[in-house]
Amino acid sequence: MSAAIFAGIAGFAGSVSAQEEVQPEEVAEVEVVEFGDAYGAFISDPSAAFFTISNLWLLLAAALVFTMHLGFATLESGLTQSKNTVNVLFKNVFIITMGILTYAFWGFNSMYPGDFNGFFAPGSWFDVSASMEYMSSEYADYTWYTDFIFQAMFAATAATIVSGAVAERVKLPSFMIFATLLVTFAYPVTGSWQWGGGWLAERGFYDFAGSSLVHGFGGFAALGCVIILGARRGKYVDGKIKPIVGHSMPLATIGVFLLFLGWFGFNGGSVLNADPYLVSLVFVTTALAAAGGAMGAIFLSWVLLRKPDLSMALNGVLAGLVGITAGADSISPALSIVTGLIAGALVVVSIIFFDKIKIDDPVGAISVHGVCGIFGTLAVAFFSEAAPFGIQAIGTLSICAFAFVVSIILFGLLKVTIGVRVSEEEEAEGLDIGEHGQEAYAIKPS
Amino acid sequence: MSAAIFAGIAGFAGSVSAQEEVQPEEVAEVEVVEFGDAYGAFISDPSAAFFTISNLWLLLAAALVFTMHLGFATLESGLTQSKNTVNVLFKNVFIITMGILTYAFWGFNSMYPGDFNGFFAPGSWFDVSASMEYMSSEYADYTWYTDFIFQAMFAATAATIVSGAVAERVKLPSFMIFATLLVTFAYPVTGSWQWGGGWLAERGFYDFAGSSLVHGFGGFAALGCVIILGARRGKYVDGKIKPIVGHSMPLATIGVFLLFLGWFGFNGGSVLNADPYLVSLVFVTTALAAAGGAMGAIFLSWVLLRKPDLSMALNGVLAGLVGITAGADSISPALSIVTGLIAGALVVVSIIFFDKIKIDDPVGAISVHGVCGIFGTLAVAFFSEAAPFGIQAIGTLSICAFAFVVSIILFGLLKVTIGVRVSEEEEAEGLDIGEHGQEAYAIKPS
Amino acid sequence: MSAAIFAGIAGFAGSVSAQEEVQPEEVAEVEVVEFGDAYGAFISDPSAAFFTISNLWLLLAAALVFTMHLGFATLESGLTQSKNTVNVLFKNVFIITMGILTYAFWGFNSMYPGDFNGFFAPGSWFDVSASMEYMSSEYADYTWYTDFIFQAMFAATAATIVSGAVAERVKLPSFMIFATLLVTFAYPVTGSWQWGGGWLAERGFYDFAGSSLVHGFGGFAALGCVIILGARRGKYVDGKIKPIVGHSMPLATIGVFLLFLGWFGFNGGSVLNADPYLVSLVFVTTALAAAGGAMGAIFLSWVLLRKPDLSMALNGVLAGLVGITAGADSISPALSIVTGLIAGALVVVSIIFFDKIKIDDPVGAISVHGVCGIFGTLAVAFFSEAAPFGIQAIGTLSICAFAFVVSIILFGLLKVTIGVRVSEEEEAEGLDIGEHGQEAYAIKPS
Repeated sequence: MSAAIFAGIAGFAGSVSAQEEVQPEEVAEVEVVEFGDAYGAFISDPSAAFFTISNLWLLLAAALVFTMHLGFATLESGLTQSKNTVNVLFKNVFIITMGILTYAFWGFNSMYPGDFNGFFAPGSWFDVSASMEYMSSEYADYTWYTDFIFQAMFAATAATIVSGAVAERVKLPSFMIFATLLVTFAYPVTGSWQWGGGWLAERGFYDFAGSSLVHGFGGFAALGCVIILGARRGKYVDGKIKPIVGHSMPLATIGVFLLFLGWFGFNGGSVLNADPYLVSLVFVTTALAAAGGAMGAIFLSWVLLRKPDLSMALNGVLAGLVGITAGADSISPALSIVTGLIAGALVVVSIIFFDKIKIDDPVGAISVHGVCGIFGTLAVAFFSEAAPFGIQAIGTLSICAFAFVVSIILFGLLKVTIGVRVSEEEEAEGLDIGEHGQEAYAIKPS
Repeated sequence: MSAAIFAGIAGFAGSVSAQEEVQPEEVAEVEVVEFGDAYGAFISDPSAAFFTISNLWLLLAAALVFTMHLGFATLESGLTQSKNTVNVLFKNVFIITMGILTYAFWGFNSMYPGDFNGFFAPGSWFDVSASMEYMSSEYADYTWYTDFIFQAMFAATAATIVSGAVAERVKLPSFMIFATLLVTFAYPVTGSWQWGGGWLAERGFYDFAGSSLVHGFGGFAALGCVIILGARRGKYVDGKIKPIVGHSMPLATIGVFLLFLGWFGFNGGSVLNADPYLVSLVFVTTALAAAGGAMGAIFLSWVLLRKPDLSMALNGVLAGLVGITAGADSISPALSIVTGLIAGALVVVSIIFFDKIKIDDPVGAISVHGVCGIFGTLAVAFFSEAAPFGIQAIGTLSICAFAFVVSIILFGLLKVTIGVRVSEEEEAEGLDIGEHGQEAYAIKPS
Repeated sequence: MSAAIFAGIAGFAGSVSAQEEVQPEEVAEVEVVEFGDAYGAFISDPSAAFFTISNLWLLLAAALVFTMHLGFATLESGLTQSKNTVNVLFKNVFIITMGILTYAFWGFNSMYPGDFNGFFAPGSWFDVSASMEYMSSEYADYTWYTDFIFQAMFAATAATIVSGAVAERVKLPSFMIFATLLVTFAYPVTGSWQWGGGWLAERGFYDFAGSSLVHGFGGFAALGCVIILGARRGKYVDGKIKPIVGHSMPLATIGVFLLFLGWFGFNGGSVLNADPYLVSLVFVTTALAAAGGAMGAIFLSWVLLRKPDLSMALNGVLAGLVGITAGADSISPALSIVTGLIAGALVVVSIIFFDKIKIDDPVGAISVHGVCGIFGTLAVAFFSEAAPFGIQAIGTLSICAFAFVVSIILFGLLKVTIGVRVSEEEEAEGLDIGEHGQEAYAIKPS
């Protein structure tokens, strides 16, 4: 049955779009193993088993990274006020669905295969018959479709990080436009520098799963936006910091657990095959760094704030995860704990610092993703032999600076045209009523 | 160790039940590969690797479909009032656990193997020694147990769909009886028409993962019940529609994300093996259709309702998923976006339409699963070459009509005997107190 | 690329720690298959496919067991009062992260490989070059790293079970110390009796995935702590039981669904490879027992309490799961339903019983994990041929008694030194303010 369906699709979809210029020479010469007749392939080629296992693992990893988007949605809504919850949830539903679509239309073609292919890559992965040419272990240990879906789930992450930092006062349409432009055009540029085989890859930069390329990028894009947007009203009054507490710690905690879970796919899937040694090592370093991050944040914040702070513990877990992301396959288990501990301590200091300088980031996204993203990239140089300090510093600063500058420009243009901030009245009343005419909760108090 | 345990089970369980008449001829002749000695099998038969990978994928897919039941539970409770939340959650716990059991006793035997085997199939899959005869790649790319658990997770879905539509006024025992009869006896009948190799399968009907067989079935069963049950009091007053808003948009959003996640197993698992090409294609079409559905619903509802509506965005995601389910392996990625867009727009129009004609469906289940289920089945004819329009129309209408008529009869009989609706007082006070003597929340307002 | 990275790590990490004395003779002689060059391995050794599949399954199972910790966090917070929710969540974040770390430092070395290796095992799994010697199907069907991460996720479970029973009145630092000591030193002792190849394993005790070793252990540790800690104020007044209801049934229900989901990894992963027969059987018995547990609890509590009780239904699901855990691979599907039904009925009776004798357990952990853990271990003797009644009774009682006595001693020492209970005022005001200076919710009532 497989074979028949398969032939049907290939025949039909050939008419959907034309594939041109996308085939680099090194791929074009490969003899394609057709998996439609899966049994045949297995019997004639033992390595087909590895291809099939790796492909399945990458698909499951994509599903795990998808789960991170639910984690972001719940974390961000938990850490903000209940009058803005519908708005937060709406943004998160929009980002992941928009992100998958724009990555299909532009992003994936820009980054793969090979070097940066321009914003509107002429060949399209929509062409099913072309996709068959990448059905070979010479291209990768997974199909071209798998490549797309795994990368698409990553791409939307950058915009999600920004969403948290600008929450509770950003104008919805402006954010939607900004997020779309960021995911569609800006993210693939820096992505192509490294994962597309560009200048950073050529110089030996090492960022295994994206401490810089995803998290640093998102964190510094967030910083640019927050500088343009300004703080929430009432946060900094007469030189004093007035905490604006989140509305649901259970939602925030669910978010962090789901992000931790999804990170097994984010880092583990970045092995790009099911190599037993590497995937299991990455699971271990990821978990140990998260645990170290929690410990670092719990105990430092306990000392500094005199109380065991749940928000800090949660941010510590995320800090450890961001910190290990660049070196999850090259830092040893013992040193991944150290990486996590430092990241967990760093996030506490960073959150307090940004609050002091009146950068208002309701969820701590700049500290968790931006600051710990840079630290994680440098940790590769400190704690492994995968790359020297110089190129790690150059790489992470280039990526973060690019994200920051692009955001300043894009968000700045939006500010002077359609505006980026809701009115004072709407901010006070809440964006749920103002933007959506809907409230998040109708729980009868008992 | 495996081999020893294995022998022990086979020996013991042989006494549990007797297996008779279940072996179709084409299976009976197959030489059984015994996997208890897994290493031996791998060394002697390279295709055993594919069997093992496929079996693992189907089990993981079953776990993902299980996750959809948590998605339904949270979606339904989020979109209904807090005074009925315990009732909603109780129904959902009951449906999945009851569904697994009755599918074990009757459903699975009715549908598999081969054609419809009668309501009380004489041979039982409980017989472990019999199950061994299906441990061969000639039967399927997975074990008979895997077949059961994957199909069982599907079966309970039909009743879950009804649960949402009848929420907030249905009498608990009546619903429990109805749901049990629907899952146990009605679902396997239409299932056998297609997946059991019945008359629709013979005529070339194509419903890959159940746009009609699961979602259309559930949606039209829901319509039948709602017609008999009537609207919630206060919903339609003096010819006007009074919205009854849900009590927690975070819960509803969690539900939709979990359903999206689980759908990778629902559709991806329906490939029925780990074929790298097909499974990755299905992941891509599923994700793109969901994304298209969100876009279609967001922008059409923004135009029609003047506000970006979160509930509509959420229903749009589900509409896209239901819409692609019938053709997830045969519609191209580009056209899966189109399928999603149409489904997302359709669900907005449909929800508004059913509200206009006073069919009160608190969660939009009839529109999402019923209307988009029919559309998705027809989309196979529009957007792929898997089947012509004629048989798709005949198939989906037959299945939906069967579900509708059976529900009218069953639920009608319950109405005239034990009643299907709670008292006016109980509806006002809430079913949580009325049916369960328990409240869902005790959150101290701050 | 894999091979290069791999060599880099091995070279570097060799300096992290020295590996001594950990290699039992039977392992030392094995010829190591190096998976860094995965393709080579696949082509030269067909069994490498099975190793790779099994390794992936164990990693996914570890991720599923991790998900259970989110399940415990949401279940425990849902079933307790909103004034203690931050505290409950904080404890759960602490337990899983602390548990992973201490298991890395001590627990894993104590239990593996082979027999009990002392509290501070001299050889360390941190040594990457040593870990390579276990990269062979002669050691196991997965890497040493996978072994660690899967077992680490299990280890933290024992402390999590205690957390629920002592909730709403335990002093945070005392609990943190107790949980750390329990996971780090006590759990590996009983673990080594069976899974480390100790005296119970030698005598033929059978506890497939830990009805006794994890759940019974946790449940009876909880009983010891509750006896020392005493009941919550206001629970038992003038000889009457005053119910203290949980604050969010949706959170509790989410918790149980996630635990059910995670149990597919807990039991399914305990097969320790991807054997298609055994893993699929375990999925089926696990699901059927959970379903049976729900039915047993729903109908017995309906009779006894006159209402369909959601909390009892939820505890019934968990009771069925705990009940089947010891025999998930050796009890037939039909008898796994019976096992679940009995466990589900038992948990209802047990919860009522413990309440009567004034053992105050807010979440029912002693009944679910302790009582049903013992029952599940004995069910192996009743419903399978895996082990006779005698050794099952000896084993489960030894393990539960050890956990109980150790907890009485440790928690007793903490009581007489730093105290284990918060002040009367703090208990009344809630631990969130008292211990954390933070509230869980700020939902504007509508």
